[in-house]
Amino acid sequence: MAQLYTPSQIVKNFPRTCLRGIGQVMFQDNMWTGLLFVIGIFWGAYAEGFPAVAWGLVVGAVVSTLTGYILQLPDKNGAQGLWGFNGCLVGCAFPTFLGNTVWMWIALIICSAMTIWVRTGLDNVLGRWKMSSFTFPFVLSTWFFLLASRLLHGMPPEYMGSPELPGDVHTALNTGFGDLVVYWLKGIAQVFLINNWVTGIFFIAALAVSSIRAAVWAMISSAIALATVIWWQGPGADISEGLYGFSAVLTGIALGATFCNFSWKSAIWTVIGVFITVFIQAAMNAFFSPIGLPTLTGPFCVATWIFLLPAYEFFQPKNAQ
Amino acid sequence: MAQLYTPSQIVKNFPRTCLRGIGQVMFQDNMWTGLLFVIGIFWGAYAEGFPAVAWGLVVGAVVSTLTGYILQLPDKNGAQGLWGFNGCLVGCAFPTFLGNTVWMWIALIICSAMTIWVRTGLDNVLGRWKMSSFTFPFVLSTWFFLLASRLLHGMPPEYMGSPELPGDVHTALNTGFGDLVVYWLKGIAQVFLINNWVTGIFFIAALAVSSIRAAVWAMISSAIALATVIWWQGPGADISEGLYGFSAVLTGIALGATFCNFSWKSAIWTVIGVFITVFIQAAMNAFFSPIGLPTLTGPFCVATWIFLLPAYEFFQPKNAQ
Amino acid sequence: MAQLYTPSQIVKNFPRTCLRGIGQVMFQDNMWTGLLFVIGIFWGAYAEGFPAVAWGLVVGAVVSTLTGYILQLPDKNGAQGLWGFNGCLVGCAFPTFLGNTVWMWIALIICSAMTIWVRTGLDNVLGRWKMSSFTFPFVLSTWFFLLASRLLHGMPPEYMGSPELPGDVHTALNTGFGDLVVYWLKGIAQVFLINNWVTGIFFIAALAVSSIRAAVWAMISSAIALATVIWWQGPGADISEGLYGFSAVLTGIALGATFCNFSWKSAIWTVIGVFITVFIQAAMNAFFSPIGLPTLTGPFCVATWIFLLPAYEFFQPKNAQ
Repeated sequence: MAQLYTPSQIVKNFPRTCLRGIGQVMFQDNMWTGLLFVIGIFWGAYAEGFPAVAWGLVVGAVVSTLTGYILQLPDKNGAQGLWGFNGCLVGCAFPTFLGNTVWMWIALIICSAMTIWVRTGLDNVLGRWKMSSFTFPFVLSTWFFLLASRLLHGMPPEYMGSPELPGDVHTALNTGFGDLVVYWLKGIAQVFLINNWVTGIFFIAALAVSSIRAAVWAMISSAIALATVIWWQGPGADISEGLYGFSAVLTGIALGATFCNFSWKSAIWTVIGVFITVFIQAAMNAFFSPIGLPTLTGPFCVATWIFLLPAYEFFQPKNAQ
Repeated sequence: MAQLYTPSQIVKNFPRTCLRGIGQVMFQDNMWTGLLFVIGIFWGAYAEGFPAVAWGLVVGAVVSTLTGYILQLPDKNGAQGLWGFNGCLVGCAFPTFLGNTVWMWIALIICSAMTIWVRTGLDNVLGRWKMSSFTFPFVLSTWFFLLASRLLHGMPPEYMGSPELPGDVHTALNTGFGDLVVYWLKGIAQVFLINNWVTGIFFIAALAVSSIRAAVWAMISSAIALATVIWWQGPGADISEGLYGFSAVLTGIALGATFCNFSWKSAIWTVIGVFITVFIQAAMNAFFSPIGLPTLTGPFCVATWIFLLPAYEFFQPKNAQ
Repeated sequence: MAQLYTPSQIVKNFPRTCLRGIGQVMFQDNMWTGLLFVIGIFWGAYAEGFPAVAWGLVVGAVVSTLTGYILQLPDKNGAQGLWGFNGCLVGCAFPTFLGNTVWMWIALIICSAMTIWVRTGLDNVLGRWKMSSFTFPFVLSTWFFLLASRLLHGMPPEYMGSPELPGDVHTALNTGFGDLVVYWLKGIAQVFLINNWVTGIFFIAALAVSSIRAAVWAMISSAIALATVIWWQGPGADISEGLYGFSAVLTGIALGATFCNFSWKSAIWTVIGVFITVFIQAAMNAFFSPIGLPTLTGPFCVATWIFLLPAYEFFQPKNAQ
């Protein structure tokens, strides 16, 4: 666990380390990608009247990156942005779902920090199969606090859906071309829980700065997910907010542009993976309905594990760690 | 991953490979067992007015076996029927629970194929403890699609129970001797989701062709499960359809006739395992009640893992892989 | 698996082995600790009008310890009390939640025995990461039977809460100093499911006999948990019965006095662990609300795994096995 940097270098590098952490949410070790993500998030959060989501992002990224230094983890990981990507998502999720109270912000800070050791622990387990925890440390830690909010009134579940038995929610959907483009872009923006199509454009640009292949797979994946959920007649309200897109986008970037070498075979594999992510998304939505819990990026983690664990030579996987 | 067969041999062997896959649902690498299962299933499916279940079985077995060849997995496994047993159960489950639509059949095909790589992945994990995934690839993949059907109206949950809080469903039960025999045989038939006592007789015969010991344990296990759930006063409607029997039957064949060498000790171990499977069945029924999801053969997988994982010398376990 | 004792020694040592098992619920390999636990439990169970809980404790400890001998497990583990701690908790839990019927007692005996092989199996798995199953064999086995009780009327869920969607249960709480002391002591007593503050005093004394450090961490942890859940405005009825304390107490003893060497760093680590246990407790309460299942000591297991799995050098962990 040799450390690369002196304290003064840590301070100097800190903003870059945080931005790379934000870029790593979509697997890009690139501070410019991170910066464009931040701009897109601030745009969308203010446009939608939820500025706390953008500030939560900053707090989450800073707190979790600091925690990595405090715990003296190997700073090579930190420099690659591997400390920040879970924490910044915690920072987006808390104000999206919980009331804006002091207790919520304290919980946000604790939960962002916690993702660091949850990640180390899960990676200790999954590393046995050369597998990574992806964003599951964010998902698991945030689930604990969002569920707890049902019973702890200092941190109320103000913007979470009501718990209800899963049922017949057949809401209509406008399917004009302009509408579809908006849903498609929102599917990308929702990776950071932003319900705004302009943010989706920022995100595509941000990916393209680092990897054209990642940007293309994000666009393809959101389109496949949208087509699939419309064909299978999913709930209109969720489709129009991009809620069937974000996990599929992450699966697409993970399989198509990160953990498999390029080939026609791996491209087909990715398309199937994105397609099945939509069903896993619907399944987890139904499963969590009686407790009113959002899936977060859980469906992406489950789908990507399912498609990487077999480690078929056929798809020329890279090491997923 | 040396391949045993040339393409022309694959074509010639294909029906046998599929039949062995169907036989492996009850751990029998025997095409005649598979054939008798198919006959019993067609009998029961047509008798109960659900012919799609029988045709689903055929589609599922063919698709998943083909997928094994397409992915170029080691064909020694295929020849033993290890590619077909999850897929054929997917094929029975989809028409049992979902409406008969085009979207359902497309999903059935995707899900049958998917069991192949879910199985490889799970076995990569469980293999560390010399444990196999049994029918859990079928269970997990099918759970995703059945849950998704609550929200995706192209594939409606037509024959699934309504989601409801678990409660006081004390339905009466006729316990004449003839009734008990019917429940006991249905417990065996329900392994392939068939609610027909004649099918149960076919299945006993099918097992006996391959292994008398397996047939005997299937009969004993269904009887133990029936006695247990009647003594503990379980819900009459489920008992009379054999729904407390099928997981116990699989546990009995797995522990009693497949993964333990014969001895008085391992026989007692098997009886305890079958007995506890009944409680795990009831527990999972209650757990899934608010989302209206059937357990499928999940209780068998959980129970058998619990009884094989300790790997006590005492019971002379064979390698469960 | 050399055996230490002859049959006559086993008989002679049996009471001591059982008492050590009871002591191990709070990680103390000490028969006097176990004896004081038993006295505190009998006091509380009779005072609260639930004598069956105390007798269940005895039956569970005896049955599970006997099972260890019958299965011929290495009796070094038995002598350390590692066979009894799950079984005795099963014995407390069944009469706490289920109606007092013959079928309940038979199930109690089976479930106590079952914890032995569930523990061997889980430890086989978790041992790969030098981790132990703690009280999870008790938790998992008991969850099966408590859930099953919703459907099996021979063993009715008489004292379990009704299944309901998680919601707005903001009950008031008296916070006079005397009240707080009672809640704080009940938080410790509830480790054995006893709702009685005097029992809490017995338990602190019992811990102090074996380890002052463990007694101090139990007291600190119950206090932290109480303060946290009051600040975050949890449900008054549960707080006043100590139901937010018991898992936190176990996390505190595990991290603070058992699996980390003493240092300021590990003390801070323990405090954070105890704090987060409260949120995991609330989260699991909400998660299980629609099926009306108690969390038992599940939140402690989850929290302690999360804090031990990273195995940071920073906190000087001992081997958790």
